[in-house]
Amino acid sequence: MTTTPLRITVWGENVHEQVEPHVAERYPDGMHGAIADGIRENLPDAVVRTATMQEPEHGLTDAVLAETDVLTWWGHAAHADVDDAVVDRVHKHVLSGMGLVVLHSGHWSKIFGKLMGTTCTLRWRSEHDQELVWTVNPQHPITRGVPNPIVIPEQEMYGEYFDVPTPDELIFISGFTGGEVFRSGMTYRRGFGKIFYFSPGDQDFPVYHHPDVRRVVANGAEWARPERERELPTLRRYDLGEYFDGQHYRGPFDDAPEDEDATPTETGAATGAAEPAETAEARA
Amino acid sequence: MTTTPLRITVWGENVHEQVEPHVAERYPDGMHGAIADGIRENLPDAVVRTATMQEPEHGLTDAVLAETDVLTWWGHAAHADVDDAVVDRVHKHVLSGMGLVVLHSGHWSKIFGKLMGTTCTLRWRSEHDQELVWTVNPQHPITRGVPNPIVIPEQEMYGEYFDVPTPDELIFISGFTGGEVFRSGMTYRRGFGKIFYFSPGDQDFPVYHHPDVRRVVANGAEWARPERERELPTLRRYDLGEYFDGQHYRGPFDDAPEDEDATPTETGAATGAAEPAETAEARA
Amino acid sequence: MTTTPLRITVWGENVHEQVEPHVAERYPDGMHGAIADGIRENLPDAVVRTATMQEPEHGLTDAVLAETDVLTWWGHAAHADVDDAVVDRVHKHVLSGMGLVVLHSGHWSKIFGKLMGTTCTLRWRSEHDQELVWTVNPQHPITRGVPNPIVIPEQEMYGEYFDVPTPDELIFISGFTGGEVFRSGMTYRRGFGKIFYFSPGDQDFPVYHHPDVRRVVANGAEWARPERERELPTLRRYDLGEYFDGQHYRGPFDDAPEDEDATPTETGAATGAAEPAETAEARA
Amino acid sequence: MTTTPLRITVWGENVHEQVEPHVAERYPDGMHGAIADGIRENLPDAVVRTATMQEPEHGLTDAVLAETDVLTWWGHAAHADVDDAVVDRVHKHVLSGMGLVVLHSGHWSKIFGKLMGTTCTLRWRSEHDQELVWTVNPQHPITRGVPNPIVIPEQEMYGEYFDVPTPDELIFISGFTGGEVFRSGMTYRRGFGKIFYFSPGDQDFPVYHHPDVRRVVANGAEWARPERERELPTLRRYDLGEYFDGQHYRGPFDDAPEDEDATPTETGAATGAAEPAETAEARA
Repeated sequence: MTTTPLRITVWGENVHEQVEPHVAERYPDGMHGAIADGIRENLPDAVVRTATMQEPEHGLTDAVLAETDVLTWWGHAAHADVDDAVVDRVHKHVLSGMGLVVLHSGHWSKIFGKLMGTTCTLRWRSEHDQELVWTVNPQHPITRGVPNPIVIPEQEMYGEYFDVPTPDELIFISGFTGGEVFRSGMTYRRGFGKIFYFSPGDQDFPVYHHPDVRRVVANGAEWARPERERELPTLRRYDLGEYFDGQHYRGPFDDAPEDEDATPTETGAATGAAEPAETAEARA
Repeated sequence: MTTTPLRITVWGENVHEQVEPHVAERYPDGMHGAIADGIRENLPDAVVRTATMQEPEHGLTDAVLAETDVLTWWGHAAHADVDDAVVDRVHKHVLSGMGLVVLHSGHWSKIFGKLMGTTCTLRWRSEHDQELVWTVNPQHPITRGVPNPIVIPEQEMYGEYFDVPTPDELIFISGFTGGEVFRSGMTYRRGFGKIFYFSPGDQDFPVYHHPDVRRVVANGAEWARPERERELPTLRRYDLGEYFDGQHYRGPFDDAPEDEDATPTETGAATGAAEPAETAEARA
Repeated sequence: MTTTPLRITVWGENVHEQVEPHVAERYPDGMHGAIADGIRENLPDAVVRTATMQEPEHGLTDAVLAETDVLTWWGHAAHADVDDAVVDRVHKHVLSGMGLVVLHSGHWSKIFGKLMGTTCTLRWRSEHDQELVWTVNPQHPITRGVPNPIVIPEQEMYGEYFDVPTPDELIFISGFTGGEVFRSGMTYRRGFGKIFYFSPGDQDFPVYHHPDVRRVVANGAEWARPERERELPTLRRYDLGEYFDGQHYRGPFDDAPEDEDATPTETGAATGAAEPAETAEARA
Repeated sequence: MTTTPLRITVWGENVHEQVEPHVAERYPDGMHGAIADGIRENLPDAVVRTATMQEPEHGLTDAVLAETDVLTWWGHAAHADVDDAVVDRVHKHVLSGMGLVVLHSGHWSKIFGKLMGTTCTLRWRSEHDQELVWTVNPQHPITRGVPNPIVIPEQEMYGEYFDVPTPDELIFISGFTGGEVFRSGMTYRRGFGKIFYFSPGDQDFPVYHHPDVRRVVANGAEWARPERERELPTLRRYDLGEYFDGQHYRGPFDDAPEDEDATPTETGAATGAAEPAETAEARA
């Protein structure tokens, strides 16, 4: 479930635009500005705002995230400069239900790597390849209203092997002038959140002005909308024959005989993902 | 590719056995000892050794991992005490091709959480439920030689929602006395490594003495055997029309005009997973 | 794309209701009547009609199907009596984009078997088992508004191994009193159509009066709504560098030198699924 | 389980070789001959025989299939001439566990269509495109020993949208000179059988003489090897608390009160796939 209208935050690293004049010229409102405009154009009822790395806490405070249904992420030059605390916060919100749309070079962002668990590496070349984006899942709402293929006259090449987990849904595959192919549109479900990765889009080409690319990004944001109240999955104990009133986990010897219960060892989560939860019980 | 015979390292946390007499009695050689015996029994040609948390570097030095085709992981009481450096090392070896079999409460280990990217939480109860392990993928080699269902007279209950990514292959689903169900056998591919999660097995029940459970653990280890030389996936640039001689990524402005190349910004990987690789090129 | 509002046809075999008084008493408007009511209750804007096997062409003429966005299917006693021509027609509409929701014993219907390609067999028992329906994909729109688990006090048992293809999405897993488990909610994409199989629901139990079951059936119908104009996928030839103006396939020697073109061998489709298409070109 | 050594039957339509001299010259032993040689070369311990459409029952009698662990299928010009009874027989053997490797234009064969349930249509062009076959599942045994990419200098183009079900595993994606892409290596599990579809290979190009293509076909045959005794999945009833001694289904009113049991209505399977089974109980 989510409030209506859909609330989208477009996050931009905003570095290339500041240091490379040719990028600033191509994207006068920043890349995040172009991405946000493309979404507004296709989802006129959505509330779209932007946030950039240069803002305090990168513009992604807990308050902002709590009011964000779907976050889009574009970064490239400064992945390593993103604060780990912000990454952990975004991670927790995604697992709790916030949608996430990761764009292009965001494949190597900390947040995408943390959600995927893999290196997220690939092969690449920035040499004016033509990119054709082919639909392989034509029944999917993310493909609504775009031709098969989408033709992008010039684009950076991203090629396989792309080291990511097998996607829940493979939606687009791209072919490049050089003969390389790339799984360019994929969905993942992690925790209670939905994730869409879409590769077309680069600082050196005007890809975020392409109408079909803008449509796909908007479709992806709409698809990633949460289905329920935000809540982190938690570990809970349920009595035999009882299915709804789970109790918080108290530690590794929680299942020990009751007389040992006097001093529960509250270790919290080993993974870092599952923090000692104050959240309400996870119900589907 | 892998050397013959299959080299398996069985890792045990080895805490319950030390502090709870009833566990020590049930597993006189440690839980890792019982797990290792079960594998040897089913894979007589394999070379099986054990390692425990109490050893230096938890017994998982780079040298040990380099000579391990498949690692099995059982932990529970001390997930939080596992050294992050060791976790990072195991993670890197898995992404480079080492097989990993995660057992039971290992669902909440740091290494599994890091590979999955989710909370890995679930519902549970330790009250002598019967567990039936049903095969839903009867063509899979991991199901070789086990009945449908496997009947485990007493076992801890693990139930859904289990917060993990959609598996590559769902192999077993368990049903419990209380009516709960659990995806109890699942495979994942991450980087060049294969992962098998199998939930039956607990310190409070003699599950690792159950012949069918032992068979499945051995089948899983055999299945997870690497297909190629160990190597971490890396990000590389390929010229147009050239497919095999990739060049290392030099940093975020690597695709800038050539005259800026004089001072490459070698930032390394944002994700922490993709370290500046000295490894050879990733070839399939 | 689809017209608004959503147009749903609920198909009922309507045999048990006619020959077994206890079923007629439980479902006075027929099982199809109860299923249709449940959908109307949850999707008040939808246009819901029913069709039964006893009508001419089983009530599923080409005109009816052309105006149906989503078809639901319940059958059991008379699977073998369903006309193959009607089955072929429904099959063609599904591949062309019509949604299909297959219910309970519909697992053994001709149309489901034709779409799955497998035996669709399972294990069963009708002995008042309790069924718990667990959500394993809590981000999916089909799970909207239902508790985890759904509790069905009495129900026929369906158990694994259920011989169907690996689903695109596994949404529900059921557990029964006897300890059996069943993949009870699954989605499939075939051609341009979306299919949802949901097993709860039986002539001998009042399952279609259960509010959560009604909600899931309605959610499934809403999810299966087509995304595009109805059109059968076709085989077409495209010139080098041309992506949108494909030509119909003329036969097995279509790729022969041009002078052999004089007498094209129009054999049509071997599979029976792909009839010589008069339809417009398939575009995503 | 399967007997050792692996027994493979290579089926060839054997029409192009008979009517087109340029094909006969390219494949002097027939295309089936070249395919069989490629398998022998890579699996020297396998027993490989061929069968062609012109033989009685197309060379695929029940006796031949019963002694075949894995069947490979190449057809193109004469899909429509393949006897439906033979197709049903092959279908039944696949569902009972026989492996199947479908090659190139076999995508439009009756047997593949019957197993997939879709039109299996695609886009194509036979104009000397270069095909690059990229590995996207480098951990899979089918990728053993082949470079990434496989370079095929000239080949027919097959492009998306390929109307097949979502594969269990996507292993290869091809890119063509024209920029088209194709899911060229995919696995499916149907019944107890494993299926591998691999698209490279054509009558007009010497693709079956290409060492990497030969290696993949052999790898696929090895992977598709059955894991158990051949047996068709069947529908059976199991008593409460009893998991191994199922009873055959007696018809649609099998679950009626016992006094109606006198005249069981043995209707057999609605789908045509699940014939009244004489086979032993399906056990995993």
